[in-house]
Amino acid sequence: MLGRTLSCPGPRRRTTARKILAEFKNCMTHELELRVRYRECDPMGVVHHTVYPTWFEMGRTELLRSMGGCYRDLEAAGIFLVVVKLEVQYRQPARYDEVLTLETSLVRSTRAKIEHAYSLQRDGVLLATGETTLACLDATGHVREVPGSLVTTGDAPAT
Amino acid sequence: MLGRTLSCPGPRRRTTARKILAEFKNCMTHELELRVRYRECDPMGVVHHTVYPTWFEMGRTELLRSMGGCYRDLEAAGIFLVVVKLEVQYRQPARYDEVLTLETSLVRSTRAKIEHAYSLQRDGVLLATGETTLACLDATGHVREVPGSLVTTGDAPAT
Amino acid sequence: MLGRTLSCPGPRRRTTARKILAEFKNCMTHELELRVRYRECDPMGVVHHTVYPTWFEMGRTELLRSMGGCYRDLEAAGIFLVVVKLEVQYRQPARYDEVLTLETSLVRSTRAKIEHAYSLQRDGVLLATGETTLACLDATGHVREVPGSLVTTGDAPAT
Amino acid sequence: MLGRTLSCPGPRRRTTARKILAEFKNCMTHELELRVRYRECDPMGVVHHTVYPTWFEMGRTELLRSMGGCYRDLEAAGIFLVVVKLEVQYRQPARYDEVLTLETSLVRSTRAKIEHAYSLQRDGVLLATGETTLACLDATGHVREVPGSLVTTGDAPAT
Repeated sequence: MLGRTLSCPGPRRRTTARKILAEFKNCMTHELELRVRYRECDPMGVVHHTVYPTWFEMGRTELLRSMGGCYRDLEAAGIFLVVVKLEVQYRQPARYDEVLTLETSLVRSTRAKIEHAYSLQRDGVLLATGETTLACLDATGHVREVPGSLVTTGDAPAT
Repeated sequence: MLGRTLSCPGPRRRTTARKILAEFKNCMTHELELRVRYRECDPMGVVHHTVYPTWFEMGRTELLRSMGGCYRDLEAAGIFLVVVKLEVQYRQPARYDEVLTLETSLVRSTRAKIEHAYSLQRDGVLLATGETTLACLDATGHVREVPGSLVTTGDAPAT
Repeated sequence: MLGRTLSCPGPRRRTTARKILAEFKNCMTHELELRVRYRECDPMGVVHHTVYPTWFEMGRTELLRSMGGCYRDLEAAGIFLVVVKLEVQYRQPARYDEVLTLETSLVRSTRAKIEHAYSLQRDGVLLATGETTLACLDATGHVREVPGSLVTTGDAPAT
Repeated sequence: MLGRTLSCPGPRRRTTARKILAEFKNCMTHELELRVRYRECDPMGVVHHTVYPTWFEMGRTELLRSMGGCYRDLEAAGIFLVVVKLEVQYRQPARYDEVLTLETSLVRSTRAKIEHAYSLQRDGVLLATGETTLACLDATGHVREVPGSLVTTGDAPAT
């Protein structure tokens, strides 16, 4: 949905492990363009603060897709990601009909949790930032290990 | 939730079938009081038109409860009610923090469908009216017959 | 936002008034692609019925844009369009992550009202249809005449 | 809406300043009962994480009302409170039709900001906690000083 993945670097030579890591990390970032809906705005004429985490969720869906995964298939397979922590910092308001850019990044993952960071901009102006922590549940609602496929890209640069 | 059922009439004598029917119908009406949330209002400063059908759904939940049923239990038993038709007529705007009264009525039911009507008021002023038609699905998503318990009240006046 | 306007026909010769009208009407239709958000789905795993009119509103915004207008500018100029009537017919459920196509058409307009029709499809399968009637208010909330620019396209075929 | 203010203590003698402060603080807490709507739940069958901050906002409205204020009147007077920071910690899921208790507390205020804390429970089980920071804007969108009436209760215990 108007999303585009920051292009993963092509083949290269003599890259150090550090460089690989940096490039790898770039692959774990996704930019999503979205247009503000009228329904998303409140009597102050600006986007209501509860809308931002909905956009963050869209960002995670598209980031995963760009990595070769599909959250819908995950749920069909009995793997559920739930938000256990949410933080949002609001800097500038967004308004109806504006086109915004949401950058979603996978910043850290362990066997138990996945952390994402978000940056929302309009024409280069930072409007909001955010962070979420996800846990992974099985079909019975019990915590389970985070599948490796969720935090590594399908076409990750080989060492 | 602030809801109250229109009281069913007590014992009576020499009521005709017609009167019984009228009283029975009264039992199929429920009044719900609700306070408008800030999130439900839009840049015009009034409740967004998409919020009304959410309130209608709340009205149906409470009407069923007042009749002795519980929609949550229905779903747990594999019975799902889905909206197949929705109509809303908007007359006057509602605003943040106002306390409104939603009257939900069961107006007609067949083996295949249930029809409700809605009337939203603020201090006696009619703000909106609406109608919905529900169909009944089983756990596999197939249409099934409407359970009788959904359209008759547990304490319906006996003939 | 992923929207595309059905292309208005280019120059032509010997068209009758009837043909012009038909082509003109085509200009009054807009197709919007949208991807279902997780937040838009309910415990049945399908899009909640209250979400469709939000999509219809997006369709109207994009239809107006395709005609050379901008609803945001309208409000800034003190012209407000409010929904006075809504109807939705639900045929098939939509689900999370599906890409849907919403066709929005301007079907009728008078000095007092604007009527739109909607058709929501997934891969050619009709999921829902709908109709809305809008009235036009001024900045003080009083009914005013519908501006002609709202119901005629900027690049309408000349006779 | 089903809310009740923790009762402020009545007249008393020989209270120390510390006790007064503690009682005063109690007046700055409000409990709101709310019933989970079907629309608020997602395909996992639990309340979507974006709904909690909407409830927090309702809690703030009712806390202010219990203190003798009214947010709607504030906006009418050109005073706007905006969320500049939001944090939510999710512990246990909430489900459709459950009755929950939200405790909203005013925890700190300066001339520039107001901080609230939230605790959401179901039958004594803690489901979620949260914190928000609000800033105060004037009608032109510029930051202004927080009015004292927002952070002191009308019937505050006199010293």
